Amino acid sequence: MAKRDTRLKIIEAGARIIHEKGFNNTGIQEILKAAEVPKGSFYFYFKSKDDFGLELVDYFQALMQSRMDEHFNSPATPGLKGLKSLFDEFLDFFRHTDGRLGCPVGNLTQEMGDINPQFRQRLEMALNEMKAGIQGCLETARSRDEMDASLDLSETADFIVNSWEGALVRMKAMKSVEPLIIFDKMIFKFLKGA
Amino acid sequence: MAKRDTRLKIIEAGARIIHEKGFNNTGIQEILKAAEVPKGSFYFYFKSKDDFGLELVDYFQALMQSRMDEHFNSPATPGLKGLKSLFDEFLDFFRHTDGRLGCPVGNLTQEMGDINPQFRQRLEMALNEMKAGIQGCLETARSRDEMDASLDLSETADFIVNSWEGALVRMKAMKSVEPLIIFDKMIFKFLKGA
Repeated sequence: MAKRDTRLKIIEAGARIIHEKGFNNTGIQEILKAAEVPKGSFYFYFKSKDDFGLELVDYFQALMQSRMDEHFNSPATPGLKGLKSLFDEFLDFFRHTDGRLGCPVGNLTQEMGDINPQFRQRLEMALNEMKAGIQGCLETARSRDEMDASLDLSETADFIVNSWEGALVRMKAMKSVEPLIIFDKMIFKFLKGA
Repeated sequence: MAKRDTRLKIIEAGARIIHEKGFNNTGIQEILKAAEVPKGSFYFYFKSKDDFGLELVDYFQALMQSRMDEHFNSPATPGLKGLKSLFDEFLDFFRHTDGRLGCPVGNLTQEMGDINPQFRQRLEMALNEMKAGIQGCLETARSRDEMDASLDLSETADFIVNSWEGALVRMKAMKSVEPLIIFDKMIFKFLKGA
């Protein structure tokens, strides 16, 4: 197996396990076992567990970006329809996990944000990218006259990202997607100003 | 020192350290040292670290309840003014922590929600109590005709709790209280429907 494939296998297994159990609570051996990669090979690919964690954030950010690109750039879902179809996809995903997991970036922020500055900066960037994508979508929505004219688009995009992160926290507490359904209802009412 | 005082000292030290570093990342010895309580006495007061964690959630919930009671029941801050003064107090608190710490209940939910059902249920209850307090405040606001008449109060209270939790996640990522300021601006615009 090529070096790059093995590296990706470790990242994918780590993403899955750390999304579920948290960063500090997951051991390197556990990740290697799940990735079916020989013990001891971890440091061939990553300088440290922290270094690996930073690459995981890149991985999660790229996943999010691809979901936003697909929904926001599709001719079938212009403007606010794209935002709605993005959140509908996530709602569907979390229905299948019974409200577990939540946002991997939000989870890592809660866990690592205060104790590791490098992590924090990387997580901040990932959330800023999500905000930028959503702001772009809102700009299209405004040009299509779909939005309350009194809303500042940058602040509104921040509010959406943040409220979404919080809806996922509550979902984890309730083991129910009800917070996501309320988020959807309230945010679109807010955006339309009606 | 009475048994009850020692117990409280351990809880207060644990609350402080775990709020900062997380549950799995904090050792019992570290808590006892900060509490200035002899090593080995932990299990005299608590059955296990998990048992201690559940009591911490009770402690955090009681703190939140006392803040809500003070703001929501004061004749100086009726209706939405009470909600605003509660969030202003927290904004002030997080200004002093440079955007660190976040919500202890939200942090524990992210960290423990999926891996410990007892924790999850206890955290769900704490968030439900916060929602109930805020819903009571919104009911007063409605009776004073301060709110958009089209909003469902139960769902709106949930949305406020969840969006607040998310604003605190983003705050930790940014090391800035800006997300709390945007939360304040957006939520009160939303509540007033204007």
